[in-house]
Amino acid sequence: MARVRRSERIGAIVNILCNNPNQTIAFNHFTEMFKASKSTISEDIAIIKELFDKYEFGEVETVVGAAGGVRCIARSFKKDIGFIEDICGKLAVADRILPGGILYMTDILFTPKIVQEFGKMLAAQFRHTQPDFVVTVETKGVPIALMTARALDCPVVLARRESKVTEGSTLSINYVSASSKRIQTMSMVKRSVQRGQRGLIIDDFMKGGGTVGGLIDLLHEFEAEVVGVGVIMSTKDPKEKKVKDYRSLMELDLGDENEPKVIVKPSMWLKEG
Amino acid sequence: MARVRRSERIGAIVNILCNNPNQTIAFNHFTEMFKASKSTISEDIAIIKELFDKYEFGEVETVVGAAGGVRCIARSFKKDIGFIEDICGKLAVADRILPGGILYMTDILFTPKIVQEFGKMLAAQFRHTQPDFVVTVETKGVPIALMTARALDCPVVLARRESKVTEGSTLSINYVSASSKRIQTMSMVKRSVQRGQRGLIIDDFMKGGGTVGGLIDLLHEFEAEVVGVGVIMSTKDPKEKKVKDYRSLMELDLGDENEPKVIVKPSMWLKEG
Repeated sequence: MARVRRSERIGAIVNILCNNPNQTIAFNHFTEMFKASKSTISEDIAIIKELFDKYEFGEVETVVGAAGGVRCIARSFKKDIGFIEDICGKLAVADRILPGGILYMTDILFTPKIVQEFGKMLAAQFRHTQPDFVVTVETKGVPIALMTARALDCPVVLARRESKVTEGSTLSINYVSASSKRIQTMSMVKRSVQRGQRGLIIDDFMKGGGTVGGLIDLLHEFEAEVVGVGVIMSTKDPKEKKVKDYRSLMELDLGDENEPKVIVKPSMWLKEG
Repeated sequence: MARVRRSERIGAIVNILCNNPNQTIAFNHFTEMFKASKSTISEDIAIIKELFDKYEFGEVETVVGAAGGVRCIARSFKKDIGFIEDICGKLAVADRILPGGILYMTDILFTPKIVQEFGKMLAAQFRHTQPDFVVTVETKGVPIALMTARALDCPVVLARRESKVTEGSTLSINYVSASSKRIQTMSMVKRSVQRGQRGLIIDDFMKGGGTVGGLIDLLHEFEAEVVGVGVIMSTKDPKEKKVKDYRSLMELDLGDENEPKVIVKPSMWLKEG
């Protein structure tokens, strides 16, 4: 087998890193794949690190030690703000206001190339919490939960508004919706979470925080730990939410009955980086 | 600005192609990004094509003409069979059989790195049909629909088992479940599909084909065209399904009451490539 050129190795390594976000790929994998020395691969990785930095593709991290290797965390603060501002512009149109003061954003939530970027942003915020799984409640939270979990390399666990017969034993709780004040039920399949696991709550939208509060109670029933709460959009009102500690990408202000409006803006912390 | 090295350009181009599957990136984008001539970029692309082929990462296609550029279609038949066989092994365990002869596979469906590969495989099957959107029914179909749509670069449209007040006007149909023979309702938000659009139906599981049949009826109500049907798993029985023309990645055989078993195998067409 002919010696593999540097440009070819670099192209192949970038492809593998991009398709396996946040997974540590052992140096040995590359030395065997290219029949190259570890020092050659290290030089390749150094070039990749530099180019990811230069073009703001994200971070390439080298992990030392026995389980050592390299991993890629797609992330760019500067680009994120511009991206979020574009989406805010698309959302802030009167045509999107539905009866009950709700903003139609299902089309955005279900467009893979948009929700993939949202997922990377939320993953970057919570990567240090090292979740074992991402948890969300059906249905509109699924795409953002899946894309956040993809970027973190962990599975999604799904809570349901009713217990389905098709998935075996479930554990259920009741909670009060913060907006409607009605009692709701939420269930999760027993085999889906083990005691002591770390769960990251991800959802599309937060108003009063009732649903997220329900998810927190449900995880406690499983004796699992809640390591963070992230949503795509939260509302300006009510200011007092059931959940205090959360990160949202955008904030929605619909005004009140006397002065209705549609203002969507990136959350403050995004600008602070 | 110093001249950009070939290895750096190749790493950057691969990153952009991987993060934007099935999207045509104009050559101009790269000539401006690297301040390089078109012939230089063409040479880079030729090297990338070769390495994608050599390592079975998928296909890199060059598009000529005014809207010309390059795009990447992640795909590898040889690897796919091995991947599917591994998953079949994980699924074919008695512990996964639930009351009613259903196989528990939610954990597989909600693991991003698995469902991402399923999505690439289904996308490769249906890319030639050039869908405007992928459509699925909540909830377990969402991850595979999203990942297939990601690989095709189109949005997902969601049908629901009930109409939700939070999304505006809906169009509903009734259909008969093939397994339970019960009448069911399925709704879709009116603004989500335009007349004449091309819809690709993607779901997680097909037994009698009633749900997919309902989705076909629903798309017809929207005067949209159904360009294909793909599922992750179909059952051996009943052999006669409501839907004749579909592609599934795996086939499930649970035997009968006298001789229960769990056999999961890759669908035949996968082996034929």
